[in-house]
Amino acid sequence: MRVTDLIHKKREGEALTHEELQFLIRGYTAGEIPDYQMSAFTMATYFRGMTDQETAWLTEEMMHSGDVVDLSRFGNRSVDKHSTGGVGDKTSLIVAPIVASLGGKMAKMSGRGLGHTGGTVDKLESIPGFQTTLSAEAFMRQVDEVGVAIIGQSGNLTPADKKLYALRDVTDTVDSIPLIASSIMSKKLAAGAKSIVLDVKVGSGAFLKTEAQARQLAEKMVSIGTSCGRNVTALLTNMDLPLGYYVGNALEVIEAVEVLKGRGCPDLKAVCVELASHLVKHCQGMPLDDARAHVLHQIESGAAFETMKKWIAAQGGDARALEDYSLLPQASHKHRVLAPHGGYIAHMDTQKIGEASAVLGAGRTVKDAPIDHAAGIVLHKKTGEKVEAGEAIATLYTNQPETAGESERMLLGSIRWSDHEEAAQKLILGVVQA
Amino acid sequence: MRVTDLIHKKREGEALTHEELQFLIRGYTAGEIPDYQMSAFTMATYFRGMTDQETAWLTEEMMHSGDVVDLSRFGNRSVDKHSTGGVGDKTSLIVAPIVASLGGKMAKMSGRGLGHTGGTVDKLESIPGFQTTLSAEAFMRQVDEVGVAIIGQSGNLTPADKKLYALRDVTDTVDSIPLIASSIMSKKLAAGAKSIVLDVKVGSGAFLKTEAQARQLAEKMVSIGTSCGRNVTALLTNMDLPLGYYVGNALEVIEAVEVLKGRGCPDLKAVCVELASHLVKHCQGMPLDDARAHVLHQIESGAAFETMKKWIAAQGGDARALEDYSLLPQASHKHRVLAPHGGYIAHMDTQKIGEASAVLGAGRTVKDAPIDHAAGIVLHKKTGEKVEAGEAIATLYTNQPETAGESERMLLGSIRWSDHEEAAQKLILGVVQA
Repeated sequence: MRVTDLIHKKREGEALTHEELQFLIRGYTAGEIPDYQMSAFTMATYFRGMTDQETAWLTEEMMHSGDVVDLSRFGNRSVDKHSTGGVGDKTSLIVAPIVASLGGKMAKMSGRGLGHTGGTVDKLESIPGFQTTLSAEAFMRQVDEVGVAIIGQSGNLTPADKKLYALRDVTDTVDSIPLIASSIMSKKLAAGAKSIVLDVKVGSGAFLKTEAQARQLAEKMVSIGTSCGRNVTALLTNMDLPLGYYVGNALEVIEAVEVLKGRGCPDLKAVCVELASHLVKHCQGMPLDDARAHVLHQIESGAAFETMKKWIAAQGGDARALEDYSLLPQASHKHRVLAPHGGYIAHMDTQKIGEASAVLGAGRTVKDAPIDHAAGIVLHKKTGEKVEAGEAIATLYTNQPETAGESERMLLGSIRWSDHEEAAQKLILGVVQA
Repeated sequence: MRVTDLIHKKREGEALTHEELQFLIRGYTAGEIPDYQMSAFTMATYFRGMTDQETAWLTEEMMHSGDVVDLSRFGNRSVDKHSTGGVGDKTSLIVAPIVASLGGKMAKMSGRGLGHTGGTVDKLESIPGFQTTLSAEAFMRQVDEVGVAIIGQSGNLTPADKKLYALRDVTDTVDSIPLIASSIMSKKLAAGAKSIVLDVKVGSGAFLKTEAQARQLAEKMVSIGTSCGRNVTALLTNMDLPLGYYVGNALEVIEAVEVLKGRGCPDLKAVCVELASHLVKHCQGMPLDDARAHVLHQIESGAAFETMKKWIAAQGGDARALEDYSLLPQASHKHRVLAPHGGYIAHMDTQKIGEASAVLGAGRTVKDAPIDHAAGIVLHKKTGEKVEAGEAIATLYTNQPETAGESERMLLGSIRWSDHEEAAQKLILGVVQA
């Protein structure tokens, strides 16, 4: 088999066989196929796409390129959740304890933030003492006993995907639906859960800007997961407005806890309830409406919050910080952003809000750079709301006061104003399942 | 400037600026831009194409990536010829002395054969003593005195093209019209001639299989050359049937000499007369019909053949071999290929004929491998001709008699038979000029 023939086949729009994709991925991972041939192949794939069957084979090859976690002891109850990444997205912190409190077993590996998006691991690390590295034994024991453990990427999962993603990142071949779908699903499949919910974000703050693209990606991913015997549901959720009001690491922990305490932002709560309900439906084998009733009960009764405290404590975190927020990292400076004029907020570019938060110290532009857990933004007004001139739109939190000016400009620049009220946006745009 | 942004721009179908192409080509040639980004860019270019302006800028950057030959002392009389490569294509051996005998100055660098196509340098080296390496001074002196010198690639011409071509070869991005056009024209422009004729071959034995592709390429190349102040004409010639009857190195020298002696294959002569006439038109500033009359006179009078003898002798070759062909390399074995049945030859796949000749020792599959100058094929019958069962279609020449069987099978496999005479094919399909 010659690599140029496979590039040619894809360039001409033909489908590759399982053997051909195997040859490509194994050869590339082993370093036998050079980057320059793989990047030509991925660019041809960007233009020509892949059939569902090709995408499934590609995913399978990447999944098996490294370790695969065995969660079979938990049967249908092993659950996982994936978000395609957004701004202010603290849903994992809320969904995990809810589902665990209902018998789900979430053994989850999460990423760190980069650019304008945050990462669950960073958010959890803002809780004093919280450990995001556990031995394999401790990880499994905690999942078994508490129902949830979230750690950073560990082990040698999907090395093929790691290598391919790094290449796509520098060759402008990231935004290819089959390549995104196989990248995400190879990791989820290797992580071992039987029931998976995918939060596919759409809009200005998300990777995918249109609903059509997001639906296409969701369908591909559900199809791949289903063909591998997993229960997969994808929700298309709106990232054209911030999810909740808090952006930043410790700030997002607070907002997540507020939802679990039965308070907090209704929008955020609504999305989390849907995500959790689909997982409970799968892992308990019950109708969605019943699952939703259970989920709401766990929030209202405080049972989900109790599970969160157990979880945080199990991973070494100071659970008292979930009651007394002053135990979380505090910013030395607060800066109120005032409305330059009155009107309605017609649109907020959430990517710009994420960037405005990163400037304050909450994000990183380079992998592995340190971040300031206390930094971030609390919005007081969001899309659709009316604002009076001089009213506070947001408060900026930072330990680097010199950044506040730029962050304020970016935040104000994210807003499109209107002189009249506009129709409220839907939060959940669709559900895709097998 | 970031390479990924330039890849993105091309991927989205936008045109790059001169500065952007400069950044890409200079960075790539200097080794600052890695192969894997360049191959993603060339694949995006394969799908999205380039404007004439982009192609001209790209060509200019590649032309200036290395040495540029200065032929300005010859003014309009400096001439060059390029063929996109075919089977049995010995036109340079014929055109060069004709044009030189009419005052043209052909300072030409030529390539070696690879795969099913031959190279002018290999053909010339079949003449005993002929040197294809000359010092820059000797090369220029010979052009001045004899009017023609043909040597192998020398000096540091267009290193950017060399590097890029090698990459395209292994990433299936060779057959992109703007990339082919800029590759060919960067070399021709760097080689310095003022008047250039391009022989763009179309058909089964050529790189370009359809007339539409060939015309597109010809138009791009003429446009680039013209915008750089050169006189450029492109002929689209038919490579769907072999050019002449002889394929192989010494064999093609014989056939070329026969044409210059006023004999030889009329088809081959007709194409050479047109190529030469366009060059004479440009370099002497005369109407095409007058140029053609001069060209025909130089053949009939023997003046062109006298120039060829002077040229061969000037480069150390034994010019007596042009009179006494037994002084050329001789094959130890000859094998006649007989028609398995009677009928008309409706079509010959010239690529397969080239491959059948290579198998006998006349070609190479790996760069720089040695070749057998004596090996090759003399066709006795060609497309359109009637053949009786058992009649000789061709004679195979080789010093490795064990290859004759395979070569015969390939040759017979190249033929499509018909039971009736078909319309004769045109040899010159079109002319493209500014």
